[in-house]
Amino acid sequence: MKILVTNDDGIKAPGIRALRDKLKEVAEIVVAAPAQQQSATGHSITVYHPIWVNEYRFDDSRISGWKIGGTPADSVKIALDTLMMEKPDLVVSGINQGPNLATDVLYSGTVSAAVEGAMHGIPAIAVSLASYDSPDFNAAAEFCCSLVEQFKTGKLPKFSLLNVNVPPGPADEIKGVSVTRLGSIEYENAFEKRTDPHGRTYYWMAGTPVQGHNAADTDVAAIEQGRISITPIHFDLTDYTLLDELRGWNRSNGKIS
Amino acid sequence: MKILVTNDDGIKAPGIRALRDKLKEVAEIVVAAPAQQQSATGHSITVYHPIWVNEYRFDDSRISGWKIGGTPADSVKIALDTLMMEKPDLVVSGINQGPNLATDVLYSGTVSAAVEGAMHGIPAIAVSLASYDSPDFNAAAEFCCSLVEQFKTGKLPKFSLLNVNVPPGPADEIKGVSVTRLGSIEYENAFEKRTDPHGRTYYWMAGTPVQGHNAADTDVAAIEQGRISITPIHFDLTDYTLLDELRGWNRSNGKIS
Repeated sequence: MKILVTNDDGIKAPGIRALRDKLKEVAEIVVAAPAQQQSATGHSITVYHPIWVNEYRFDDSRISGWKIGGTPADSVKIALDTLMMEKPDLVVSGINQGPNLATDVLYSGTVSAAVEGAMHGIPAIAVSLASYDSPDFNAAAEFCCSLVEQFKTGKLPKFSLLNVNVPPGPADEIKGVSVTRLGSIEYENAFEKRTDPHGRTYYWMAGTPVQGHNAADTDVAAIEQGRISITPIHFDLTDYTLLDELRGWNRSNGKIS
Repeated sequence: MKILVTNDDGIKAPGIRALRDKLKEVAEIVVAAPAQQQSATGHSITVYHPIWVNEYRFDDSRISGWKIGGTPADSVKIALDTLMMEKPDLVVSGINQGPNLATDVLYSGTVSAAVEGAMHGIPAIAVSLASYDSPDFNAAAEFCCSLVEQFKTGKLPKFSLLNVNVPPGPADEIKGVSVTRLGSIEYENAFEKRTDPHGRTYYWMAGTPVQGHNAADTDVAAIEQGRISITPIHFDLTDYTLLDELRGWNRSNGKIS
């Protein structure tokens, strides 16, 4: 089994190292990840600049890697289209430092890298540790590895991906696993207005999550309960409900046309 | 009626000017758009750098504008959260120079700006001229304006958005309007491998679309037939079909947990 490993925190981040160290026990690993921190880049791709690719050697020389001068989506795209001689069986993106839950997945480089894999017909998993400061990626890496072993049997459909969030702490304190839908997180005071040393105004994106109502079957609720959340993700943005409505509207000339 | 107008080609692009010039006939317009070209930035947001906001004065001084030192999603977010005293009734993003069709919408700054509006509960429209070189935005601006007039009556639900692509050419040559679902576009030779003046290898994203099979009800087919395409878009990335399957799998311990 061959796995393409990527992330959005950059190839030198501890999360991708923990992931690679664990997954190499069960599969052949190829790493292609951004040279720099790329959090919140969403599904950004680089079309107006050249993309530099350099070999990257982890201290364990058995694992080859490419350091990509671009975004997470660039990294997966160039690895699958150009760098890898043979397509991988799976793309795994992470382990992200910090949660990727609810509507925030739209901003996530980690999830977008996995989406890019799925768009290429390679099943994908995005993994995040739901803590901005815990340095312990072990439980997340172990769980991800157990999922990968399950998918060895080809159970994950071709164009699909899973978004996995793991609560911080040791594995034996995790309360269980929930298969979830995406919840919703709203922020207040999204921007801080500041003044630079020359008296000019600028803004910095900040924001505190508003305590919302997330039903028990959402990813947000699972993490709050100390459970691992697995959300299946698709990338067909068509709104089929509204589609039917608009078509009816068009036909009856309620109008549009 | 108050409309927030934005784009991803930058505030000085001809497409946003054409859109603003037309929409001001039917609504009060506020512009908040990126200072620079931001194509293909997807739903990227700026969290690690300050965001500069400067007033921008179009030659027609009745229309106020903000030039945002960030991405399209940043522009909408900061306009709605911080800059606008009163929420708009609608967000309109465009007119993009070039199509935004099929899976390519995931990379689109134009569409992501509209998604950001919808996430804030403001109905949104993304408009693209399906040509990289036609300088004539009139037909697209006119059609967008007629759609906006229809939505004055509040017909577009709160969290929804429409992705509109208009074929190039004069309005009277357009073959009609189709309400569509997103199709699929695949690219071959996605990257060009080049050598810099110092002998170092780099890559540049390129790619030619592979002639695919897009059913008659897709956005791609509509544009190929010279028709305007309207695709309703949502931003709930949960894959509900796979969700049911995984839950069944979890319950019967086919496994996961």
